[in-house]
Amino acid sequence: MILALDLGGTKHTVAVHQPGEAGWRAHERVFSPPGADAQYDLETVVALGRKLTKRQPISAIGVSFGGPVDYISGTVHLSHHVPGWEGIALGSRLEDTFGVPAVVDKDTNAAALGEYRFGAGRGTSSMLFVTISTGVGGGWILDGRLWRGAGRLAGEIGHTVVEPEGPMCLCGKRGCTERLASGPFMAEDLRAGLEATGLDIPGPLTGQRVAEMAAGGHTMARLILERGARALGIAVGNAVNLINPERVILGGGVTKSGELWWQEVRQAARQTALPQIGLEIVPAALTDDAPLWGAVALVLEKDD
Amino acid sequence: MILALDLGGTKHTVAVHQPGEAGWRAHERVFSPPGADAQYDLETVVALGRKLTKRQPISAIGVSFGGPVDYISGTVHLSHHVPGWEGIALGSRLEDTFGVPAVVDKDTNAAALGEYRFGAGRGTSSMLFVTISTGVGGGWILDGRLWRGAGRLAGEIGHTVVEPEGPMCLCGKRGCTERLASGPFMAEDLRAGLEATGLDIPGPLTGQRVAEMAAGGHTMARLILERGARALGIAVGNAVNLINPERVILGGGVTKSGELWWQEVRQAARQTALPQIGLEIVPAALTDDAPLWGAVALVLEKDD
Repeated sequence: MILALDLGGTKHTVAVHQPGEAGWRAHERVFSPPGADAQYDLETVVALGRKLTKRQPISAIGVSFGGPVDYISGTVHLSHHVPGWEGIALGSRLEDTFGVPAVVDKDTNAAALGEYRFGAGRGTSSMLFVTISTGVGGGWILDGRLWRGAGRLAGEIGHTVVEPEGPMCLCGKRGCTERLASGPFMAEDLRAGLEATGLDIPGPLTGQRVAEMAAGGHTMARLILERGARALGIAVGNAVNLINPERVILGGGVTKSGELWWQEVRQAARQTALPQIGLEIVPAALTDDAPLWGAVALVLEKDD
Repeated sequence: MILALDLGGTKHTVAVHQPGEAGWRAHERVFSPPGADAQYDLETVVALGRKLTKRQPISAIGVSFGGPVDYISGTVHLSHHVPGWEGIALGSRLEDTFGVPAVVDKDTNAAALGEYRFGAGRGTSSMLFVTISTGVGGGWILDGRLWRGAGRLAGEIGHTVVEPEGPMCLCGKRGCTERLASGPFMAEDLRAGLEATGLDIPGPLTGQRVAEMAAGGHTMARLILERGARALGIAVGNAVNLINPERVILGGGVTKSGELWWQEVRQAARQTALPQIGLEIVPAALTDDAPLWGAVALVLEKDD
């Protein structure tokens, strides 16, 4: 039996899975209150884990963490959303608490592995998973294994540049995929565009709202959504030219932006990839539980 | 003993190598006359191979081919330079002629493997090799093996887009790395720039000439060389963000463009790669014989 943890920015999920079974033996999701820090979040998931495993002995723990971690040592580098995670030895803490081995990886790797084992990547031996949400990140399965990179930093498709003269990204570069395609940045671009032209700003703007307005015929929203989708498509096409994976899987909130978005992504990717390269772009299958299934898969991968 | 063949556009090399030794037992290079076709080139290298292996029994043949081939079947898709190669079963032909197994791959993969085993990639377990010459192409070593991709089309860094609004590439896209960074295209851009401004065109222009003029203080030549170097650096930085290899190795004629070119490539790559990602960019070590050493390495890889 495997204890699977998904530690997000504000949302944490703890579940128990028996390998070979289709679903969860137990599954609980909690939301952190505003101002929660690493200590609070860690205590919360440990308490939940204790509760769920009281009558179900576990043999291993898999953890998906919403930020960069050192996969080998299980130590968190930091969280971009929650203070206090710097240098916390999350793997060892959980091993000490539960008395079983723990494996920790960042959420994009976990989600890639989850989709590969249990979702839209089944049947392939190589795939690129990309999540397009508040950020844009990716994970690679190559030859049936997670490819983490020499410094375990692979998969940063969000910080590949698609418009060298484009707008400034948080990372300091111009025209990164994340700067153009992520939900919050599309919302920011729409707000800036509306302000610049003196148009009304209809309430709080989010990536989802941009997509809704675009679908409703709002020209500026449509242009921004299309630009984001095109940037993502170019980034995906470039990645496919470089690595030629069997399948590309897109997940995250922005993939729910509707047919216009998908069309634009697919078209830009197809135009960017060389004509002879096979290109299959499909939606993620696991939705919210992708990192949690990934946490399970991290344990199974270790045992392979 | 291994028979190694390097079939280029106009230059072919045939050599015999004893694994474990430092150099070649025999090594001959020939140039095709203008108008040579596949049949001519094949007969030439077969005759050379027969001559070199007369007194040296070989156990396998490795072939680097200057164009896309199907690695599994050893069949050539085509040559972009020599007519008549379409569909020729190069591997089987050589196996029938010499009575030993043959392994065939495209030159960029062979050169990547050659650098990995015998050149600037020794000691790593993952690397990206890029050749910048009449074209721009690449090859990946991941986890100590050549990564060929699901359709065996990986490594096309020359057709990753760095300037979506840039000049048109032969492949039909705009702003491909090859369109900006390859020797002939830099020469074409300089010619067009000189013509447009009514300046003198100083004799035949080549990539090498652009580099010489840039080094000699010619402003337009310098701007074009820098733009090409920057495009390559962005492409390399994006590739590093995606895959995080241990080392990047650059080879091909354009890498002899001098310190200005290397500085610009390294700077653009460093600015594009995320700050925390290690980035080591070094020149290829094997120069002209890289694909030939790669042909040897293809045989050794098969035996691993």
